[in-house]
Amino acid sequence: MALSLPKGFLYAGTPCGIKNDGKKDLAIVYSEVPAIAAGLFTTNAIKAAPVVVSMNQLKKGKKRIIIANSGIANAATAKDGIKDVNEIINAYAKGFNVKPEEVLVASTGIIGRRLPVEKINAHIITLKNDLSRQGFMDAVKAVMTTDTVPKYGSRRLKINGREVILTGFVKGSGMIQPHFATMLGFFTSDVNITPGALRKAMLAASDASFNRITIDGEMSTNDTVFILANGLAENDIINEHGKNYSLFEQALIDLTRELSEKMVKDGEGANKVIEISVTGTKTEEDGKRVAFKLANSPLIKTAFFGEDPNWGRIVATVGASCPYVSESRLKIWIGKQIVFNCGKGIDNDALLKVRNSMKNRTIQLAVDLGSGNKGFNVMTCDFTYDYVRINSTYTS
Amino acid sequence: MALSLPKGFLYAGTPCGIKNDGKKDLAIVYSEVPAIAAGLFTTNAIKAAPVVVSMNQLKKGKKRIIIANSGIANAATAKDGIKDVNEIINAYAKGFNVKPEEVLVASTGIIGRRLPVEKINAHIITLKNDLSRQGFMDAVKAVMTTDTVPKYGSRRLKINGREVILTGFVKGSGMIQPHFATMLGFFTSDVNITPGALRKAMLAASDASFNRITIDGEMSTNDTVFILANGLAENDIINEHGKNYSLFEQALIDLTRELSEKMVKDGEGANKVIEISVTGTKTEEDGKRVAFKLANSPLIKTAFFGEDPNWGRIVATVGASCPYVSESRLKIWIGKQIVFNCGKGIDNDALLKVRNSMKNRTIQLAVDLGSGNKGFNVMTCDFTYDYVRINSTYTS
Repeated sequence: MALSLPKGFLYAGTPCGIKNDGKKDLAIVYSEVPAIAAGLFTTNAIKAAPVVVSMNQLKKGKKRIIIANSGIANAATAKDGIKDVNEIINAYAKGFNVKPEEVLVASTGIIGRRLPVEKINAHIITLKNDLSRQGFMDAVKAVMTTDTVPKYGSRRLKINGREVILTGFVKGSGMIQPHFATMLGFFTSDVNITPGALRKAMLAASDASFNRITIDGEMSTNDTVFILANGLAENDIINEHGKNYSLFEQALIDLTRELSEKMVKDGEGANKVIEISVTGTKTEEDGKRVAFKLANSPLIKTAFFGEDPNWGRIVATVGASCPYVSESRLKIWIGKQIVFNCGKGIDNDALLKVRNSMKNRTIQLAVDLGSGNKGFNVMTCDFTYDYVRINSTYTS
Repeated sequence: MALSLPKGFLYAGTPCGIKNDGKKDLAIVYSEVPAIAAGLFTTNAIKAAPVVVSMNQLKKGKKRIIIANSGIANAATAKDGIKDVNEIINAYAKGFNVKPEEVLVASTGIIGRRLPVEKINAHIITLKNDLSRQGFMDAVKAVMTTDTVPKYGSRRLKINGREVILTGFVKGSGMIQPHFATMLGFFTSDVNITPGALRKAMLAASDASFNRITIDGEMSTNDTVFILANGLAENDIINEHGKNYSLFEQALIDLTRELSEKMVKDGEGANKVIEISVTGTKTEEDGKRVAFKLANSPLIKTAFFGEDPNWGRIVATVGASCPYVSESRLKIWIGKQIVFNCGKGIDNDALLKVRNSMKNRTIQLAVDLGSGNKGFNVMTCDFTYDYVRINSTYTS
């Protein structure tokens, strides 16, 4: 589906010298009019300076620009990191003729290094000149780190006969787990909506998407999702209830799910996508714990890489993560084929069929504990030689 | 140090055809007189048949033999698995002229397959004929799976002028985490000790050793540690208190630590040993959580494989695992060099020195949260291409 961009938003991205290889590393999202904003952040106890600053900025009303960089995370940089962010915000506010409190920031990259403030501030005029709707792809590329493909999408919806456009881009390919570990997401919409409704929809969408994916169980210091809404679609204002709210929320869920799937497909070194469905638990929390334990298990991830229907490892992992599971009630499916049925594994002929189905790029793994009517779904990727290569050579 | 064997114990190991490659896969530990026994088992909710049966056997007094096999775990085999174990126990009890309740069993290998009971029972006479002190190494080899080296050791101690010998062997190289995930351990001693004291010492030793190592955070269905003590050293009986108890407990801790270190060194695909020390937490539980999160982090394990002092990943992982950590109080050392000191990373020259020190086979990682006086130590290994190779091709 072709990309749509909302009214009143411009974008730019440029190399400014944070990355050594000359690739784009600095992005701007710009709203022509003040936009209401919502943000969600990492739950890591150690938060990067841009996270600390943006959390505070969000308390101060409408926003005009987001500055995002890749290459350096500006995390574990203590007060120096905060000072650097504030210098950048002040310089950009002046350069773009907005108020400092109208600026949001996000960073991704190596932890522990200081941002090159001078280099970043030396590109204010370049970015201002480059601001355009066409600049969207440059902005997308400027937040990529180990990502191998740009990840973006949009939705169009009608609200009171008005066309509303919702567009988002994300970066994230490793170190992703619930609560947004190392992902950045930037959503812009011309929808007319209350701040409360915008935040509610963003939370609901994240719970249904970003919080249900994992690459390696790691949690970053920098995860940030922003959504800006400038109202230029001129629909009747959406509040926290009613049909129009539902329409908008559903569109946002739909878009965040699309982008989540793209992140998992582009997981560091990933060869396959594994869609994990856990059912039959007593509580959703139990289902979530089992699903994430399966999704982050190195033994299961390497088995899927090897296209090996090693359901014994799945049984062991379920047993390790749920105290009340019983082998006599447990069922496991890989693809459409049941492989373990209440204490009995399938025979070798059936196993061969499963093995063939595992050649697919996307594989379903379903586990039913037969102990309740709750559950949880998680999407993850396999664990490959390339994951080890990427992460043993990513320079510190 | 040369291996010592306790009085009155004989051992044997043979290939019986469980493994396809003709390697040894069946071991016997035999006590010439009834020995008191203690056992510790996996905490996985799904326990293998030999675990279920042995837990029950331990309630029934003294023991004469342990039958252990590798190649097939006899886990997730439901009632059939239990039936198979009981058939084996009855046949061996008869063959070795002991009571069925005097037999313990342990298995390791692929989950979900039935044991070849006929093959196992066809080797009773072979094993009986082979029983000897020299058979110890055959027994050690017969429980190895992905282990690349045999792991065993012994301690000699004097109690009331009597020489007491304590000997152990373990198997384990992947899927190891607290509470013995996929390890088997067999300890024999001629010490004269009460059952309560034997169990107390085994628990203390495990807490100080096996429960402080991890390979990949996985937990198996089969973990088992047995200790048999036949009293033939004729020392004054050791009860749960006093100097002689302490001597024995310390010897057992010492031996289990030696064997734990050997398991980590032989971790699947392991290239390096990482000794993690966490201090400055409010509770030991917090220290344990941080230490295991560090030890099981794929990003940290791959960085150590790459000899990369990427302390940023360490900061992020500590932040993800302890809600009260503050970067202004956090200190991190790699080897003897501090790399992060209360919000400040070290400069590139110092980092280069650290990088060189990471060429060592064993590397220390110390983290101080500066928030209390508790802590925890864990030993683990790095994450390598070979881990992926071994676990993506280990056939199911």
